[in-house]
Amino acid sequence: MDIATIIGTVVTITLILLAMETPSAFVNVPSILIVVGGTAGATLIANPLSDFMGALSIYKKAFIPSSTLPTELIGKIVGFAETARREGILALETACEGEEDAFLSGGVRLAVDGTEPDLIMDILETELTFVEARHKTGVEFFSRMATMAPAFGMIGTLVGLVLMLGNMSDPAAIGPSMAVALLTTLYGSIMANVFFDPIAAKLTLYSAQEILAKRMIIEGIMSIQSGDNPRIVEHKLSVFLSPSSRPVGEEDGGE
Amino acid sequence: MDIATIIGTVVTITLILLAMETPSAFVNVPSILIVVGGTAGATLIANPLSDFMGALSIYKKAFIPSSTLPTELIGKIVGFAETARREGILALETACEGEEDAFLSGGVRLAVDGTEPDLIMDILETELTFVEARHKTGVEFFSRMATMAPAFGMIGTLVGLVLMLGNMSDPAAIGPSMAVALLTTLYGSIMANVFFDPIAAKLTLYSAQEILAKRMIIEGIMSIQSGDNPRIVEHKLSVFLSPSSRPVGEEDGGE
Amino acid sequence: MDIATIIGTVVTITLILLAMETPSAFVNVPSILIVVGGTAGATLIANPLSDFMGALSIYKKAFIPSSTLPTELIGKIVGFAETARREGILALETACEGEEDAFLSGGVRLAVDGTEPDLIMDILETELTFVEARHKTGVEFFSRMATMAPAFGMIGTLVGLVLMLGNMSDPAAIGPSMAVALLTTLYGSIMANVFFDPIAAKLTLYSAQEILAKRMIIEGIMSIQSGDNPRIVEHKLSVFLSPSSRPVGEEDGGE
Amino acid sequence: MDIATIIGTVVTITLILLAMETPSAFVNVPSILIVVGGTAGATLIANPLSDFMGALSIYKKAFIPSSTLPTELIGKIVGFAETARREGILALETACEGEEDAFLSGGVRLAVDGTEPDLIMDILETELTFVEARHKTGVEFFSRMATMAPAFGMIGTLVGLVLMLGNMSDPAAIGPSMAVALLTTLYGSIMANVFFDPIAAKLTLYSAQEILAKRMIIEGIMSIQSGDNPRIVEHKLSVFLSPSSRPVGEEDGGE
Amino acid sequence: MDIATIIGTVVTITLILLAMETPSAFVNVPSILIVVGGTAGATLIANPLSDFMGALSIYKKAFIPSSTLPTELIGKIVGFAETARREGILALETACEGEEDAFLSGGVRLAVDGTEPDLIMDILETELTFVEARHKTGVEFFSRMATMAPAFGMIGTLVGLVLMLGNMSDPAAIGPSMAVALLTTLYGSIMANVFFDPIAAKLTLYSAQEILAKRMIIEGIMSIQSGDNPRIVEHKLSVFLSPSSRPVGEEDGGE
Repeated sequence: MDIATIIGTVVTITLILLAMETPSAFVNVPSILIVVGGTAGATLIANPLSDFMGALSIYKKAFIPSSTLPTELIGKIVGFAETARREGILALETACEGEEDAFLSGGVRLAVDGTEPDLIMDILETELTFVEARHKTGVEFFSRMATMAPAFGMIGTLVGLVLMLGNMSDPAAIGPSMAVALLTTLYGSIMANVFFDPIAAKLTLYSAQEILAKRMIIEGIMSIQSGDNPRIVEHKLSVFLSPSSRPVGEEDGGE
Repeated sequence: MDIATIIGTVVTITLILLAMETPSAFVNVPSILIVVGGTAGATLIANPLSDFMGALSIYKKAFIPSSTLPTELIGKIVGFAETARREGILALETACEGEEDAFLSGGVRLAVDGTEPDLIMDILETELTFVEARHKTGVEFFSRMATMAPAFGMIGTLVGLVLMLGNMSDPAAIGPSMAVALLTTLYGSIMANVFFDPIAAKLTLYSAQEILAKRMIIEGIMSIQSGDNPRIVEHKLSVFLSPSSRPVGEEDGGE
Repeated sequence: MDIATIIGTVVTITLILLAMETPSAFVNVPSILIVVGGTAGATLIANPLSDFMGALSIYKKAFIPSSTLPTELIGKIVGFAETARREGILALETACEGEEDAFLSGGVRLAVDGTEPDLIMDILETELTFVEARHKTGVEFFSRMATMAPAFGMIGTLVGLVLMLGNMSDPAAIGPSMAVALLTTLYGSIMANVFFDPIAAKLTLYSAQEILAKRMIIEGIMSIQSGDNPRIVEHKLSVFLSPSSRPVGEEDGGE
Repeated sequence: MDIATIIGTVVTITLILLAMETPSAFVNVPSILIVVGGTAGATLIANPLSDFMGALSIYKKAFIPSSTLPTELIGKIVGFAETARREGILALETACEGEEDAFLSGGVRLAVDGTEPDLIMDILETELTFVEARHKTGVEFFSRMATMAPAFGMIGTLVGLVLMLGNMSDPAAIGPSMAVALLTTLYGSIMANVFFDPIAAKLTLYSAQEILAKRMIIEGIMSIQSGDNPRIVEHKLSVFLSPSSRPVGEEDGGE
Repeated sequence: MDIATIIGTVVTITLILLAMETPSAFVNVPSILIVVGGTAGATLIANPLSDFMGALSIYKKAFIPSSTLPTELIGKIVGFAETARREGILALETACEGEEDAFLSGGVRLAVDGTEPDLIMDILETELTFVEARHKTGVEFFSRMATMAPAFGMIGTLVGLVLMLGNMSDPAAIGPSMAVALLTTLYGSIMANVFFDPIAAKLTLYSAQEILAKRMIIEGIMSIQSGDNPRIVEHKLSVFLSPSSRPVGEEDGGE
């Protein structure tokens, strides 16, 4: 649960609603249609259908990140290393049964099966490459939405202005017509700056964290398979963390 | 047939037309002429005539992509590998006769002719380089159009504003004149954000897919020619796919 | 003669003039002075005097490209190779006498003089480096103009607005004054989007073509000097072209 | 104490307040809420909570930089080198006790403990990598704020304009309502151009200085440990400085 | 004396003053204060005090470049090479006494002192690195000013608009108030497009020229020290120039 994303979204939306005084005056269905629908349509032109369908589940990731903490991950892998040392590498088969992280358990199983180190490395690195590519697609999807929304906001405003200017017989209607015309620009701007742009930034961050975790898993499995001492495994993994967040006793421990 | 491009284009245009209420009020021939013609003219200055003439057929590619699915392609190549194993490499001559993909059949024919592996590699890689360059030219063409259209939209609006401001004797005409002046900005914005920019993005995506397919073909032909077992050929090609979309039984199969 | 540049320029200007209805109403000498003169002045500050003086002749290049077609060039070089084979390399002295391309004839003369291959390579590559740098300077010159022109257009409009707003005693004069103020923005936009930006793009394209041609010449001369068979020379050069535009019989010819 | 940051901030704010004539007329609580709160909220969505909480302490760094002058640092390290030469490397244990720079004292302690040079290098380089990453996070945080603030300024202005245009019954209220609507754009612009953008630039500068200092420390410790003459240590470190700011006698001293 | 910079600056300013008709109407002290002072203040926040103090002397460099012509430089270095050949390398001590270029005379003195070639190379290359860094700092300083000036121009205009809109009791004052409000945007735009942006471009150009000259000096000194024939020295240096600007007899001279 990412509290920052939730607080940020709630605070931002609340403040915008407060500024609107009577939020209902800001709701205009045709305006919503052209901005939301136009943005969605242009995104469909630019992306494959599958990306579009999966967008919501990627969006949720910015609220509920799935990656475990690096320190917990080190604990888990060092635990596996200890089991492998004490009971032999085959004992990991049962040890990793309840493991939720499919990348970790898949990697451990490869090691248990006696797959050659080079091949394990190859299989896991290839998967990592595809994970990275998938993340990049997700981030670019929201970045594109963040560019498209203000563009369709402006298209909506231009359409509204042309309609208003073409029919100015009733001076009293000019103000409200112009207000409606400006609504689409407002919608586009809110969509980009509250929903798409910051989410793309948070997803970039989570992608970096998940890739770091996967790199640690690869390093850990290779180390376990080559029969390293659990202390060595822990040391090798702690190098991935900033000195201040390493497990106690790691920073200046010589070998 | 790319359903996403079609749905996206239809939805976006429909929503814009709905927002216009009376779309006919938004049609102004001189305005269309300066934006569409100016954008086309500036693109002609910037690009060679041949790129300009071929633009429409490239545009259509975003609706009707030609590349086969990677999994189908693997099936085909593995099929060739099996034929070569069973009946000898010369049997591929007839096998690839009905093949639509000219890159694949051309490559297979090189192998059948007994061309040296290095030379096949060289010929196919060179062709791939030119395919990539041609794709890049297409994408840049539409990206340039996406920049030019709003620029000529603004030029049209400025011309309209100067005309209107220079002759304000009839106050009732100011509104409609200004509406017409704004039309060009609207046209430019729609052209860029519905027709040029998202199409450039989709073409970029297809280019990446086609190049991946061609890389798989090169790898496959080299593998067939060196007499690899069809299972090995399949394994080598499946590495190009994300683990989740690989043919069954490929992901954890040792050798 | 680049027909695309000519058609593009004529079409664009004609359409803008048509949109203006009475083009004479769009001519304002002080406005032209501040935009054209300011853009020129700022470019003079940013660039050396020599670049500024040579700009017009570079501009003309976008209309009258000097580079020969790659296929013609291959024909010429293969012709030289045949002469060298039949009559000895010294016979090239007379053969290249009428040659217009100074880079080609200069390179051939170096070979005739018996200069060492490494030195020929070095001399021609160095010259190529400077040709590239010169082209880049030309492209950047027009790109800068394309940035400066709208900036001075806006400066002119701001000056006009301040003048108009400071003296609004005659309401009837407001419209025409504002029209004049907007003229500079219009000029700047036309200059950038018709004359500078697309020309910079076309020059970039020609630069790439000319450098490709020079690379082919270097490859060809090295090949002739090492006594290669004319067929081999042709094959080596055809690799620089896309498979579809290669001379007949080149694509699948084994050696 | 960074006098430039302090003078710059005071001068800029003073001049803006002077231009406002009656600054109190520029204070509008709801406007402040939407711009400041919206910017903060969007930043929370985009960044982890910890970055957000630490922002103020990073901000202060632009006023009170912690890094010592490179020349002082050279003096200190050369002092350590002299102590090590005269009294043996173990004497550095007491020598570096009062040392404030934790990176320097930590590194010296590693050398005193007899850690192998490669491992010291590794430990210090790893820490340096994380320091660089942390700095980059800080700079990007303020750069993002500098992009977000004007965006929420515009959102606030659009909300204000829609409210004003929807209710134009009292013509006398139009001016003041529009003034309030523009306030948010002004706030966003001031936040970006006085508080966020220049601070990000100064932090980038300090980051480069601190990383240079840490590189000098690593070089110095490696040199001390390998038993180099203090003069050699000084020479090796002075290469990090521009010739004009090197300690006297260093620039042209041959060895 | 850079005539282009001077002509450009004079022409641009003259044309702007002409367009202003009565330039005195464009002078408003508070507006100047907020734009010039705000830009200066924000630059102080972003840069160290020393950069700010040295800005004027860097600015002057765009008018009075210090670098000698490359052809003159070749003449000088070849002259040193001849002296060294005829009278021995020690004779250069007196030869370079009147030399104004400190980099050249310093390098020659290192050679006279019998410093090892590697060390000379090292010392001169290090100094070159710092020269490059210093130039980059100067260019970035003016680029930042070019970004800041329009930002503070807009802040000033927003302040002016809010003041005007908050007090519209006297309709006759609206025009002039708005004129004053727009002045700051005009100032910011002129500062950026006449004084900062083109100067940054010219400084970039001079930086490249000066670095080329210094590279030629390093090459020349290394060549003299290794006892090369003056003709060889000249040939080695002429490679740095474009073929057309090389000294006569250099282009096609074999060795």
